[in-house]
Amino acid sequence: MVNVPQDKKLMTSIGDDAAAWYGDTSIQLATVDALVQDVHFSLNFTPWEDIGWKALAVNLSDIAGMGGAPRYALVSLALPDDTEVGCVTDLYKGMIELANQFGVDIVGGNVSRSSLAVVNVTVLGSAASILTRSMAKPGEQIAVTGYLGAAAGGLQISTGRFQFDSTAAASLKKALLRPYPRITEGKMLIDHGVRAAIDISDGLISDLGHVCQMSGVGALVEIDQIPIHPIIRNIFGSNALELALSGGEDYELLFTTSEEIVNKVKGAASCPITIIGEITIGDKIKLVDKQGTPFKPGKTGWEHFA
Amino acid sequence: MVNVPQDKKLMTSIGDDAAAWYGDTSIQLATVDALVQDVHFSLNFTPWEDIGWKALAVNLSDIAGMGGAPRYALVSLALPDDTEVGCVTDLYKGMIELANQFGVDIVGGNVSRSSLAVVNVTVLGSAASILTRSMAKPGEQIAVTGYLGAAAGGLQISTGRFQFDSTAAASLKKALLRPYPRITEGKMLIDHGVRAAIDISDGLISDLGHVCQMSGVGALVEIDQIPIHPIIRNIFGSNALELALSGGEDYELLFTTSEEIVNKVKGAASCPITIIGEITIGDKIKLVDKQGTPFKPGKTGWEHFA
Repeated sequence: MVNVPQDKKLMTSIGDDAAAWYGDTSIQLATVDALVQDVHFSLNFTPWEDIGWKALAVNLSDIAGMGGAPRYALVSLALPDDTEVGCVTDLYKGMIELANQFGVDIVGGNVSRSSLAVVNVTVLGSAASILTRSMAKPGEQIAVTGYLGAAAGGLQISTGRFQFDSTAAASLKKALLRPYPRITEGKMLIDHGVRAAIDISDGLISDLGHVCQMSGVGALVEIDQIPIHPIIRNIFGSNALELALSGGEDYELLFTTSEEIVNKVKGAASCPITIIGEITIGDKIKLVDKQGTPFKPGKTGWEHFA
Repeated sequence: MVNVPQDKKLMTSIGDDAAAWYGDTSIQLATVDALVQDVHFSLNFTPWEDIGWKALAVNLSDIAGMGGAPRYALVSLALPDDTEVGCVTDLYKGMIELANQFGVDIVGGNVSRSSLAVVNVTVLGSAASILTRSMAKPGEQIAVTGYLGAAAGGLQISTGRFQFDSTAAASLKKALLRPYPRITEGKMLIDHGVRAAIDISDGLISDLGHVCQMSGVGALVEIDQIPIHPIIRNIFGSNALELALSGGEDYELLFTTSEEIVNKVKGAASCPITIIGEITIGDKIKLVDKQGTPFKPGKTGWEHFA
């Protein structure tokens, strides 16, 4: 759209999970993301502490997708005049709770008046080497961390269209509002020699699409291998797969590498690591079931609050 | 309000123009600022190119206030669904026009849906040493770069309460919408041994207040020395001083140092450098006229669009 100037130190520009450039002794990472009222959260549904947690978490997840270590955060708040101080304190409380778990210092900020709340967070980090979206190679296995679909399930709670017991509801709401960034796993991938990864924020198929596009490859995904979150499988039945494929906001990592390396990562990781398919020559993503019959997913399931 | 964790590498935290910490070979700087629709700009009055320029400029000015060199920018846009692509292209065009003048690369970004436009920009930079708000000492001269009041004058154009000829209107509108960050002057201050500075974004008195508060000092300002912008003096007459004192958005630098250093800076700078008063013991800002009679400014003149 516009011609963004680049310098020789830049490794990635707009188009990966985070910007990356060579610092003096390590690779520097920077990423920015925003949560917008009535798009990413509703003040009727989302406590301020959770908004704070999530606004930082989505950025930490971008750093995780690069295999980096987060270090500093800057927070820019646009808030309505009538926002109570307690709300802002709660927002920072949730954010700092997560920041402390990864040694992230909130070093700067800005507050603007606005007719609706927008929480912008910038995170700076570093890495010795990085995971990118552009390094997937045909023949590599496609694997994901954790379970998928829970955040999208959490979003369905407010619609009243499905029956949840309170334990399931709490679990899915937590998945939606308090995603736990895969920083540890991202670094582990680097340590095991993985080169290509992305964080699954838009949805599995959409984010796999980003990897395929940036790497100039295709993919074959076996839908029966998708690690659908157990609660989602129970509650949503035949809709569960769609939530896992394109529900979004799971903030797990998708990566591609050899089967040997996947197995080593499996042995080292404390979360499930599941092979869901293979990178192919071409530019298409094909989904197949156990019998090899092509599966056509419905419309992308990612729904805004609005 | 909240307990922000800090590490030993941090030099300044929330409360200076930018966050600063020790990198491996230089001091790293980071700052974030937002322009919010109907607060900082009106789409009826502000071309998208100017929004782009200004959203970057206000951040570069924060880097200038630290005496640093800006290097990378990240842009996070929250935009209504019906925003035309051409508007976004124009926004980037204005931003890149300014970025190119200071060798700044826009390395990352994010776009969110929103019911109103919010433009968040993060700028990263570096410095060998920094200017801070907390280093002003009693007996030092208070000096400012450039002229004051023009941006506030530009804001008055849309009210229709004053008469402007087209040249004056264009000049003041440019001052408001296309502030030129004092990066060169900030570095020059460092080179000449200045230690305390701030960028005048909130208004002269307000920002001098930040320096006094952070440095634990007071100030004596001679109102007849204030470098009121000539056009403002002509058009606004007796209101001109108020615009210069508290109109805000001028993005000039205020600094404190010895008279000897001010004179050296004067000799080296290509913009006016004006001594407007002196740092004093205490915690009050006193304004006096030529005769030494105390002057009491009216309410702060900074007006949002809303």
